[in-house]
Amino acid sequence: MEKRINELTKWLKQENIEFAFITSTANIFYLSKFYTHPHERVAGVGVFQTEEPFMVCPKMEMASAKNAGWRFEIIGYDDTENPWTFIQKAIENRNVSVSAIAIEKDHLSFERGEKLQGFFPNVVFKAAEEKLNELRLIKDKSELAILREAAKLADFGVEVGVNAIKENVSELEIVAKIEYELKKKGIRDMSFSTMVLTGAKTAAPHGVPSLDKIQKGDLVLFDLGVIFDGYCSDITRTVAYHSINEKQQGIYDTVLKAQLAAVEASKPRTEIGKIDKAARDIIRAAGYGEFFTHRIGHGLGIDVHEFPSLNATNTKPLRTGMCYTIEPGIYIPEIGGVRIEDDIYITDSGAEVLTKYPKELQIVK
Amino acid sequence: MEKRINELTKWLKQENIEFAFITSTANIFYLSKFYTHPHERVAGVGVFQTEEPFMVCPKMEMASAKNAGWRFEIIGYDDTENPWTFIQKAIENRNVSVSAIAIEKDHLSFERGEKLQGFFPNVVFKAAEEKLNELRLIKDKSELAILREAAKLADFGVEVGVNAIKENVSELEIVAKIEYELKKKGIRDMSFSTMVLTGAKTAAPHGVPSLDKIQKGDLVLFDLGVIFDGYCSDITRTVAYHSINEKQQGIYDTVLKAQLAAVEASKPRTEIGKIDKAARDIIRAAGYGEFFTHRIGHGLGIDVHEFPSLNATNTKPLRTGMCYTIEPGIYIPEIGGVRIEDDIYITDSGAEVLTKYPKELQIVK
Repeated sequence: MEKRINELTKWLKQENIEFAFITSTANIFYLSKFYTHPHERVAGVGVFQTEEPFMVCPKMEMASAKNAGWRFEIIGYDDTENPWTFIQKAIENRNVSVSAIAIEKDHLSFERGEKLQGFFPNVVFKAAEEKLNELRLIKDKSELAILREAAKLADFGVEVGVNAIKENVSELEIVAKIEYELKKKGIRDMSFSTMVLTGAKTAAPHGVPSLDKIQKGDLVLFDLGVIFDGYCSDITRTVAYHSINEKQQGIYDTVLKAQLAAVEASKPRTEIGKIDKAARDIIRAAGYGEFFTHRIGHGLGIDVHEFPSLNATNTKPLRTGMCYTIEPGIYIPEIGGVRIEDDIYITDSGAEVLTKYPKELQIVK
Repeated sequence: MEKRINELTKWLKQENIEFAFITSTANIFYLSKFYTHPHERVAGVGVFQTEEPFMVCPKMEMASAKNAGWRFEIIGYDDTENPWTFIQKAIENRNVSVSAIAIEKDHLSFERGEKLQGFFPNVVFKAAEEKLNELRLIKDKSELAILREAAKLADFGVEVGVNAIKENVSELEIVAKIEYELKKKGIRDMSFSTMVLTGAKTAAPHGVPSLDKIQKGDLVLFDLGVIFDGYCSDITRTVAYHSINEKQQGIYDTVLKAQLAAVEASKPRTEIGKIDKAARDIIRAAGYGEFFTHRIGHGLGIDVHEFPSLNATNTKPLRTGMCYTIEPGIYIPEIGGVRIEDDIYITDSGAEVLTKYPKELQIVK
């Protein structure tokens, strides 16, 4: 952790920013290993160029912050106190004169921004994401080990789900079984709301599982992931129940071909937009272009959606240590949809596919 | 829904604000019945003084927005397009000249605020929460019906949890059972990460369930809620497993007495701070004052934490239609904690307690 704070410190010096105040769950965790969701309360890590960093959090979370391993100052406040005055004091105590503050502009609310501006009227606010996203973009070996484990648990989740398929079982009942088995393995939170969709609903990329029941001839789509040691996994598999018709099979084969092509294209120094292109070209050539309505994937780490963004217009190169999803899909209203998604880690020589659940078409009898 | 948009429209006229752009999941839902989590993508409802409102969302969510009942314009964009230019166009199409825009300052990020300021350089930004919070503060009969159902499901969750207690069962296994049974009833999402804590961990108000196992003599604390039809419930119960010692019993009795006093104090026109005081006085008198480290409760509705905030310094009056939690707790490090929480709805004559799971001390054998 201290290495990460040092990197931030180095950047502050370089940019002539005296103070950074980091408030998102993800980046507090990244800098401190303390995983906190303070809801509408304020929690944050304050970092300076040379002075001791501090953490501010609700009083009742101080012990957890300490247990997580934060060995610097912890400032607790209760619900009748104003955390911002404590932050101001922490800066004054360090005798730091502040002309620029780095905040997460993407996370800090407009309102809190105004409050900060009120406390520091002549200060310039810079985007701390610039540096934090760059640091988080490249996952080290210890992060890779966690991401592998998270992916393995996602594989297991799909396995539980596929095994739970039978006639008249509801989407939500399968969701329940998946999460039940994962919780028994020690998973507290899924990386997003588990998705199990059947029949025509598979055509909605952000569809919502319900008590709708699986019928013979349905496609069944699973999209799920876990949070393990603070890191997310994210897998999608689509299977057929009992039988598959020609149209469904045509979609499946195309998505699989596109997905494999995008995995194959994943190599260090490749332009990121080309990953999307590799898949999209195949889907277009098969005549389904208009039904692939989203980008090929997204970065994966502490957040389930983080950098890099794998859209067609991203001209930056892939780099060793990047981790992201590859998830082409074809969604045809009324008929149904197929999506296949893996988690990918870029190595010096190519890509390690972290999720390993089989991708060949499976017809569950 | 249109009544709600009309209320917002009225406020825009009154405040001389030409345009409101509403972007939080909760308020989009409040205005449109469309429940969306667009992650880092932009979704929003645009409202004018007299012109037709619009919704902007990722292309792949357009169908869901329409299905939710939104009968005005829906503007979809894909991942290669810039949603802000569409928003600007929607305003231009309506020939509205904008000098002030209402946004959710509490929700819109600093970064998006800067983007908006870039698009509308000479525009003043006002806080839309002022009006939206006021509207959402008072729940109507249809909302009450949903809140009652959500509370009933929370009761059921505690019942499942208590029934799952046995020696050596883990906290997470109980969490899994609770959520499994709720999902089978059609609940997709919990209103927050379900908490089951045992033994000394009950002393951490924001503790994290793990594979820690229940032992005889433990206190077991449940804190959970569901999202039902877009509205949240939130209940806490603490039970003893096998036996209870004198210290634990003393804490329990005090918390229960404090909780009942705060419920009793809940009446229209009562100063909100007095609800906290009613409970805190009892806890202080019993010598536990320093161990009640948070406010007595929080508003409850589409968000699990919303207005009113029930802290000691809130001098506003309770009003008919308000819905909130009452959840005193005593947390003694090393020894353990007790919290008892109900959901309350203020009626003309007093309070309806929505959560009904028994509060008398239960020793699970």
